[in-house]
Amino acid sequence: MKYRFNFGRYSPEDEAFYGTLLTLGNGYLGIRGEIELEPSLYGTTIAGVYDYAPYFYREIVNAPRVIGIQIFLNGEPVGIGTGGLRKYERELDIEDGILRTDVEVELQQGGVLGYESLRMVHGRRKSLVVLRFKVKPGRSGTLTVISPIKTDTMNPLYREEVMAKHYRVRKYSILEDAVYAEAETIDGRYRIGIASSLVTGLEHERFAFKNTDGVAEVLTLDVEAGKEYEFVKYAVVESVPAEDLEERALRNLREAKTAGFEALYREHRDYWKELWEVAGVRIEGDEEAEKGLLFSLFHLMQCMPIDSRISLTARGIHGFGYRGHVFWDTEIYALPFFMAVFPEKAREMLIYRYNNLDAARENARANGYNGAQFPWESADDGREATPSAIPVDIRGEKIMRIYTGEEEHHITADIAYAVELYHKFTGDSEFMSRYGLEIIFETARFWASRVKYEEGKGYVIKRVIGPDEYHEHVNNSFFTNLMARYNLLLAARYFELSRENEEWGHIAAKLGITGEEVEKWKEIAESIYIPRQENGVWEEFEGYFELLDYTVDPYGLGEERLPPEIRENIGKTRLVKQADVVALQYLLKEQFNMEDIRKNFDYYLPRTTHASSLSMPAYAITASWLGYMDIAYDYFMKCAYIDLHNLYGNTRDGFHLATAGGVWQILFRGFCGVDIKDDTLEIRPNLPPEWKEVELRFRFRGNLVDLKIGKGRVVVRVIEGERFKIRTSNGVAEVKSGETVVLEV
Amino acid sequence: MKYRFNFGRYSPEDEAFYGTLLTLGNGYLGIRGEIELEPSLYGTTIAGVYDYAPYFYREIVNAPRVIGIQIFLNGEPVGIGTGGLRKYERELDIEDGILRTDVEVELQQGGVLGYESLRMVHGRRKSLVVLRFKVKPGRSGTLTVISPIKTDTMNPLYREEVMAKHYRVRKYSILEDAVYAEAETIDGRYRIGIASSLVTGLEHERFAFKNTDGVAEVLTLDVEAGKEYEFVKYAVVESVPAEDLEERALRNLREAKTAGFEALYREHRDYWKELWEVAGVRIEGDEEAEKGLLFSLFHLMQCMPIDSRISLTARGIHGFGYRGHVFWDTEIYALPFFMAVFPEKAREMLIYRYNNLDAARENARANGYNGAQFPWESADDGREATPSAIPVDIRGEKIMRIYTGEEEHHITADIAYAVELYHKFTGDSEFMSRYGLEIIFETARFWASRVKYEEGKGYVIKRVIGPDEYHEHVNNSFFTNLMARYNLLLAARYFELSRENEEWGHIAAKLGITGEEVEKWKEIAESIYIPRQENGVWEEFEGYFELLDYTVDPYGLGEERLPPEIRENIGKTRLVKQADVVALQYLLKEQFNMEDIRKNFDYYLPRTTHASSLSMPAYAITASWLGYMDIAYDYFMKCAYIDLHNLYGNTRDGFHLATAGGVWQILFRGFCGVDIKDDTLEIRPNLPPEWKEVELRFRFRGNLVDLKIGKGRVVVRVIEGERFKIRTSNGVAEVKSGETVVLEV
Repeated sequence: MKYRFNFGRYSPEDEAFYGTLLTLGNGYLGIRGEIELEPSLYGTTIAGVYDYAPYFYREIVNAPRVIGIQIFLNGEPVGIGTGGLRKYERELDIEDGILRTDVEVELQQGGVLGYESLRMVHGRRKSLVVLRFKVKPGRSGTLTVISPIKTDTMNPLYREEVMAKHYRVRKYSILEDAVYAEAETIDGRYRIGIASSLVTGLEHERFAFKNTDGVAEVLTLDVEAGKEYEFVKYAVVESVPAEDLEERALRNLREAKTAGFEALYREHRDYWKELWEVAGVRIEGDEEAEKGLLFSLFHLMQCMPIDSRISLTARGIHGFGYRGHVFWDTEIYALPFFMAVFPEKAREMLIYRYNNLDAARENARANGYNGAQFPWESADDGREATPSAIPVDIRGEKIMRIYTGEEEHHITADIAYAVELYHKFTGDSEFMSRYGLEIIFETARFWASRVKYEEGKGYVIKRVIGPDEYHEHVNNSFFTNLMARYNLLLAARYFELSRENEEWGHIAAKLGITGEEVEKWKEIAESIYIPRQENGVWEEFEGYFELLDYTVDPYGLGEERLPPEIRENIGKTRLVKQADVVALQYLLKEQFNMEDIRKNFDYYLPRTTHASSLSMPAYAITASWLGYMDIAYDYFMKCAYIDLHNLYGNTRDGFHLATAGGVWQILFRGFCGVDIKDDTLEIRPNLPPEWKEVELRFRFRGNLVDLKIGKGRVVVRVIEGERFKIRTSNGVAEVKSGETVVLEV
Repeated sequence: MKYRFNFGRYSPEDEAFYGTLLTLGNGYLGIRGEIELEPSLYGTTIAGVYDYAPYFYREIVNAPRVIGIQIFLNGEPVGIGTGGLRKYERELDIEDGILRTDVEVELQQGGVLGYESLRMVHGRRKSLVVLRFKVKPGRSGTLTVISPIKTDTMNPLYREEVMAKHYRVRKYSILEDAVYAEAETIDGRYRIGIASSLVTGLEHERFAFKNTDGVAEVLTLDVEAGKEYEFVKYAVVESVPAEDLEERALRNLREAKTAGFEALYREHRDYWKELWEVAGVRIEGDEEAEKGLLFSLFHLMQCMPIDSRISLTARGIHGFGYRGHVFWDTEIYALPFFMAVFPEKAREMLIYRYNNLDAARENARANGYNGAQFPWESADDGREATPSAIPVDIRGEKIMRIYTGEEEHHITADIAYAVELYHKFTGDSEFMSRYGLEIIFETARFWASRVKYEEGKGYVIKRVIGPDEYHEHVNNSFFTNLMARYNLLLAARYFELSRENEEWGHIAAKLGITGEEVEKWKEIAESIYIPRQENGVWEEFEGYFELLDYTVDPYGLGEERLPPEIRENIGKTRLVKQADVVALQYLLKEQFNMEDIRKNFDYYLPRTTHASSLSMPAYAITASWLGYMDIAYDYFMKCAYIDLHNLYGNTRDGFHLATAGGVWQILFRGFCGVDIKDDTLEIRPNLPPEWKEVELRFRFRGNLVDLKIGKGRVVVRVIEGERFKIRTSNGVAEVKSGETVVLEV
């Protein structure tokens, strides 16, 4: 596995696009890929560091920039944007988790200056960023290198022209061997301490300066034309709420310097090697597919939170799209990859929800419900962070009203679903005792208070938005009602189990859950109103079938292709933004037969615009079940290249993490056909015709499994663990640790 | 007259305060006084260049910065904020209109670097900024000077952390002899072309660069320790809506360079000499008073608009306070100085209102009235620009509702008043024909539709805010009702006059004004309801006397001194934010006798917090009429030093132009006691006891008058013009051109 992504064109307009693609991160820090030799709006993202923002409640802070470098040769500033570029190569090496830059800039004084750098956001030392660079001047004379911590970064708000600076500089220190900047978020909740040091083994003079834009070290040295001069910039970004923030940052900086570049690089490569050992996927016969998939997984892994203070956000540590908020995207689309490959990370992310259970309880209370209602958008404190309105024009004269925060209630069931899915993957009953059960019970309580009884219909759920956000204020959304029913029955089942499990029993008791309450849950679940089925097709919500019918090419994408009269009245048509009924049938597959799934797929596919990046995964998975391999493969590739090809035109705002997780799910649940039936792994593969063999690894109930799927056969090996059962179309087999089992399919 | 203002302390926190005090401008361009060697948020203000903004409708644009300079010696960046300063002197020379900077910075490489500069925003060449600077390096080696046009400037919005960038860079050019940047406002209404060139007679290498932050020239040269190296930066900022913007900017730049620094400086000094020849004031016996007054007039003159596209704004070209909007401040407080000293400028500023008469008509229509209703806050297009609400916290959760735009209607009469005052000063009947009459008629029409008839009361004006903004939604404001009556009667009088003036008759006819309509105006004026008078004190508005009484020390200032329970309920008390009844008695002096004025002064003074910078002038003027010389002098000095002493703590946001105009009015109308009675100038002086003699100049009906007031005598000389009459307590005299008349008082 040796995949490198090369980009050879520089244009200031495209920098923000490449900035996302070339982001490096380690779950704690994110550094966008904009070239270090030019100024940039983008600084550093620190997972979990948020501040109050206009409209968006709280948003992830664009912290000071640590990666910039400015070079002067004989007084001439060397910039990428000014003159001729003889060479411009940027390479993202996803195997080692590094970004290489290799440029040759034509000098106005004649000749060229070569600049080569290697950037890493260190995998193990979470607060460390390292930039090694080599300068090869085409002229002799004086080389000046400025290495700043720039404190002029800001967050773009609802328009790129309107910005918020989310921190105040509290302190600059100029030290013998480093510079230090300390900032505090405007709300006073977070302090950020940044230490930076530029090191070279060459003879040099060292200066430093500070001003309102930042603090910097400056090295000058005499250079000879044609020779190469090497520097290493170390930067440490700490955000611990400690009194000794500066000391801590400097200590970590000095430790890194003492270790030195080579040792740090080795550690970093080892980190990535370990990740890829489990996460790596081999697709024989389709390098393009493998490449896109690995690119997706690389960026997904870069965002794995280091603790439970924050979960995976919609656009990762890559950018500021969706303000660093956590959506259902995380639980439904991104988490399954982590449950299977890095279950301890999935656990942390679910604990984030548990940590915010009190905020969810308050949220339910504020909206007049019981139990816990998770916010549609969640930031660092778990309160509802969805904007209720956003200005459309700069004046704020036109306002776009946003209802998702008030109506998109299915997220509460989605989180309960993810808790159960994690449990099915891992069998981690300790997690269920400490966190999971409470989430399941409290979300069930929410639904029990959310429904209303309506004579002749049963329990109804009115005024919601389902995954298909084109239709607001709808009643009895198929997706929502079925997920609510699932949530209620899940809680009822765990209540039954808790009668025989002392620890679980304590939890039910602590929450004051009675048999009576659970009976009510069951009654609601049994009588919950499900919209009608016509010719096998479930109505997305009550009244959907009465809307104007309109169909689109399933191989197209987005709304631009629609005529204006349809686009402007889209809520009055049967067009669907993203998989909704089909997504539900994927999630609750066991409740449907294939014929039912096919009818709904056939109906909804030509009515879906895929204007949401969450749409294609569910379609691709069900398509592969149904043997619609053309569409399954097409969507798989689109999802795998969503950002590399900038399919939605907004890659600049960050990486599409849910889609990246979706790509893995298409592979795992769709093409490989893996499903969990209690303690048995069911495998019913359906590979794209070009694929010769797929190999991937995952964990299932403590076992680390290597799965190879080829034409007509499945090879399963347990690398570590004990044993588990597999079911294929040819029956059930048991696999033990160290064993390899070959099954015909 | 040789006044220089010296500032010798550098601190990054105070830079924004000095930035306002040291602003240079020429009516078209404004360059704040922040030191050029440090980065700054502040760029260039261009009178009349506005853009849409959140909350504030349209605001003046913080255009790219042209004044910055960056110096490196042997690779060491020379900054003011980093190391030791051996010397830091900044001197504003208001005689020549220049800013001198003289600093000595300790170098990290040892020794010091001397930097001396002279800055001017050229008086005659409106688009030209010149910075001459001399560098004296303490070490030999290589000197690098970077001279950028910085395009990273932004407007602070409702909080300093939230900013809007009001332009997009359209183009950078790097030329043989200059660099050029072109920007366009976000709304597309204005283009800004900036050309800049750094010149030195010394041997040097020249480079240039561009990036997202700007475009720059870079000069490097070999220097010897102790020698002095001179540079001149020329920058031209054009905003004409011309296709050949770049050519035009470069042509003006090259013309300036050809003229050279010395010739340009001479022109600039001549410009200021001419201004001061008319505007200069001599106060014998009180240098402190003279100094503060001249400082105020200097900044006022720097803001004189060059044409009628925009008028004087609340905080001038000095800053972004009140978003570059035009208020009643202009007509009532600032304009009289211009009417008397630069009447052609007052004319332009009143034409600005005429140009926006259609917008005022639309405004009236939109609010359900007739005629023309001027907006409380006016930007480049004359539409209502007052925010209706501003967020208090960064989230926008708490919103402060602002009613002035909806209720502070007196501005419409204030503008009619200023038109008449201009006419009284100048006798400019051509102005009245072309512009003035139409304003007076249309504003009268507004008032005729604004009043309502109420049985037993007559015509009432409900739900307004008077100058005292502590009290919102009040009925029958004394100030508003009397100004409305004045406006109606003024229009009626001009209608009478237009019967005998053919041109004026045409205007009345064009507007369709009939005798009947004018009779109605008179009827309203005669029966307009005036709040009650108790013991000679007029009630500020209906019900004011029922409010909680509370008094404050008249020598204090602002609201901080109030106990919280009073501050938070200030609208429920009789506390007044600023002169209201007293301001009206000043403006419409002829309608009151001195005893009446005294009673109201005595009553309202201890009830006024002066939380508005507009408060003290009216009090000081009436105080001097009443012989309350202590308070008159105290307020005069406070007004004269309002920004030098940062009395309101918000000098950083721009200069208090209305107060500056108020200082001149205290002198002219108060201490000198000048009043116009038809074609006669009345002079009833009342100088502060320490003052030996005051000498000032002004124009009255085409005559340029030199007025000297000493103990017991008035000396009047007509420098140019024909003749006019003077009345003092000793009778009437006629003064002819070239004559000097001495009168006893």
